[in-house]
Amino acid sequence: MAAAADQEAPPLLILHRLPNFKLSFFPLLRAKYTVLDPHGDPPDPSFPALSKAARLMLCVGPTPVTSGVLDGYPAVECVVGSSAGLNHFDLAACRRRGVRVTTAGDSFSDDVADYAVGLAIDVLRRVSAADRFVRAGSWPVQKQYGLGSKVSGKRVGIVGLGSIGSRVAKRFEAFNCNIAYNSTKVKPNVPYTYYANVVDLASNTDVLIVCCALTDDTRHLINEEVMTALGNTGVVVNVGRGAHVDERELVEFLVRGEIGGAGLDVFEHEPRVPEELFALDNVVLSPHHAVLTPDSLGALEELIFGNIEAFFSNQPLRAELELELN
Amino acid sequence: MAAAADQEAPPLLILHRLPNFKLSFFPLLRAKYTVLDPHGDPPDPSFPALSKAARLMLCVGPTPVTSGVLDGYPAVECVVGSSAGLNHFDLAACRRRGVRVTTAGDSFSDDVADYAVGLAIDVLRRVSAADRFVRAGSWPVQKQYGLGSKVSGKRVGIVGLGSIGSRVAKRFEAFNCNIAYNSTKVKPNVPYTYYANVVDLASNTDVLIVCCALTDDTRHLINEEVMTALGNTGVVVNVGRGAHVDERELVEFLVRGEIGGAGLDVFEHEPRVPEELFALDNVVLSPHHAVLTPDSLGALEELIFGNIEAFFSNQPLRAELELELN
Repeated sequence: MAAAADQEAPPLLILHRLPNFKLSFFPLLRAKYTVLDPHGDPPDPSFPALSKAARLMLCVGPTPVTSGVLDGYPAVECVVGSSAGLNHFDLAACRRRGVRVTTAGDSFSDDVADYAVGLAIDVLRRVSAADRFVRAGSWPVQKQYGLGSKVSGKRVGIVGLGSIGSRVAKRFEAFNCNIAYNSTKVKPNVPYTYYANVVDLASNTDVLIVCCALTDDTRHLINEEVMTALGNTGVVVNVGRGAHVDERELVEFLVRGEIGGAGLDVFEHEPRVPEELFALDNVVLSPHHAVLTPDSLGALEELIFGNIEAFFSNQPLRAELELELN
Repeated sequence: MAAAADQEAPPLLILHRLPNFKLSFFPLLRAKYTVLDPHGDPPDPSFPALSKAARLMLCVGPTPVTSGVLDGYPAVECVVGSSAGLNHFDLAACRRRGVRVTTAGDSFSDDVADYAVGLAIDVLRRVSAADRFVRAGSWPVQKQYGLGSKVSGKRVGIVGLGSIGSRVAKRFEAFNCNIAYNSTKVKPNVPYTYYANVVDLASNTDVLIVCCALTDDTRHLINEEVMTALGNTGVVVNVGRGAHVDERELVEFLVRGEIGGAGLDVFEHEPRVPEELFALDNVVLSPHHAVLTPDSLGALEELIFGNIEAFFSNQPLRAELELELN
């Protein structure tokens, strides 16, 4: 009887998040699991003991999972993530401890790809700038509004042809664009031109779209040399992470007119955006927003709940990282 | 000798345009043809006589070609147009007189389709509104920015599946959207769902894209009934003509929140835009701009010069309207 009662107790789950960060499905989570929250208000007196026994951690958004964090939760076998990025995970530490890691997988990929295309059209065809022109009442006064640049047929260069990048490519193909890409390796069965380095890609590209993962290798990947190669009609769209781009350099290129424009959903020091950009009509600025629609949050919720259930019933996990074991 | 000299004289060509409207290729035109300009400054004393003998008229932009205009130019056999729309031509009058008419054909179709997709993404994902939010410095203050609505998978309804509409459809297919359309007739060999009337189309649509020709039948096609059918999450994108939409009704629907949003490149009384729209975040406003990029102007120039040359050398015209002869 005691064993049966144990089996029925809701499993323990550590809620790893920034203080005050909430998602709509937290109440549902608490209904099904014993949610251990280090930021509980009032603090949960059982947290120190129970959290040592919890086998699963739900990591909300890009909350860092470092070796030190894992030290505090010695029984954790699995981190269920909710983010498309990986740069907040110390993957080496997870690998060493045999901790499995899942991500948001494809939940956000369509939304990010849609947004990247929207930013590119917006910068090239000057949509947001046109909206500003009309709202300022300038149309009846100035009559003519400056032309933008054609989207169809442009050469689109994609940095990182993963789940997001391949969706960006598919969309731009329908605009008769020529697609090329850079990634760590050539992708098999892909009809697009491969460039082993980003400078070469930028030299052969009108619109450079950054959608790779942020790692030590891709930090400031879009640097002075890449922007010079892209040239004064080239456009950068960043839906990856702010640190992919050398932002100070980008601002200088834009201010000097040495690059054609930029569509930026991410910045190096969010929510700070370099104010020099506010005066420019050839940039579109967005508050790290590409990833989110209510629909993608629904898909993510389904993935997270599915993975938590799968873990506790020894079923296969979805969107699990392959961590090579040493 | 006199006959040879006559043959070498540049052919006469009437430049039919609004006063002061200029295009970059006018100098080239004057180099090859005797351009007769009713708005010449100073006035050309030979205009009245020569214009009576001119066989070709170049109609620049949507300058009206009425029966009265044609009365003034009795020798005109061909009007070479430069616009995608037809509503400025009195086609019945052209037909009666046996005057041939050419249009801009497909020159602008890619640009308009690209822009329609850009407006749809912008309204759904709130791109211009996000840009406004960031430029106003609101991001560090308000932290969270309201979510938009997913683009991928949406039901897209296209009003007018012609040269522009079919390109809009192709682009949205790459976003995994479900495409349906309304037009005067079912199109053969088209995989999209056909609705014989716009209300039914709107009832089954998330985003309604207007890209048909403006005729007496399509004036105020997007009326109260259609907007009601579209509903309070539905979006209207208009890249056709302002008069396709009952603008006063649309403004009321938007102000009351009974329609989800609108992306408008055209208006009923351009350059006047209803000021109530300036306060709304779910609309994107654009100064009749979808049609134009330097690239499409280049393609148009090629088409126009080709047609003028073809006419004077009795070769077939491109993008000629089929005017049924009585």
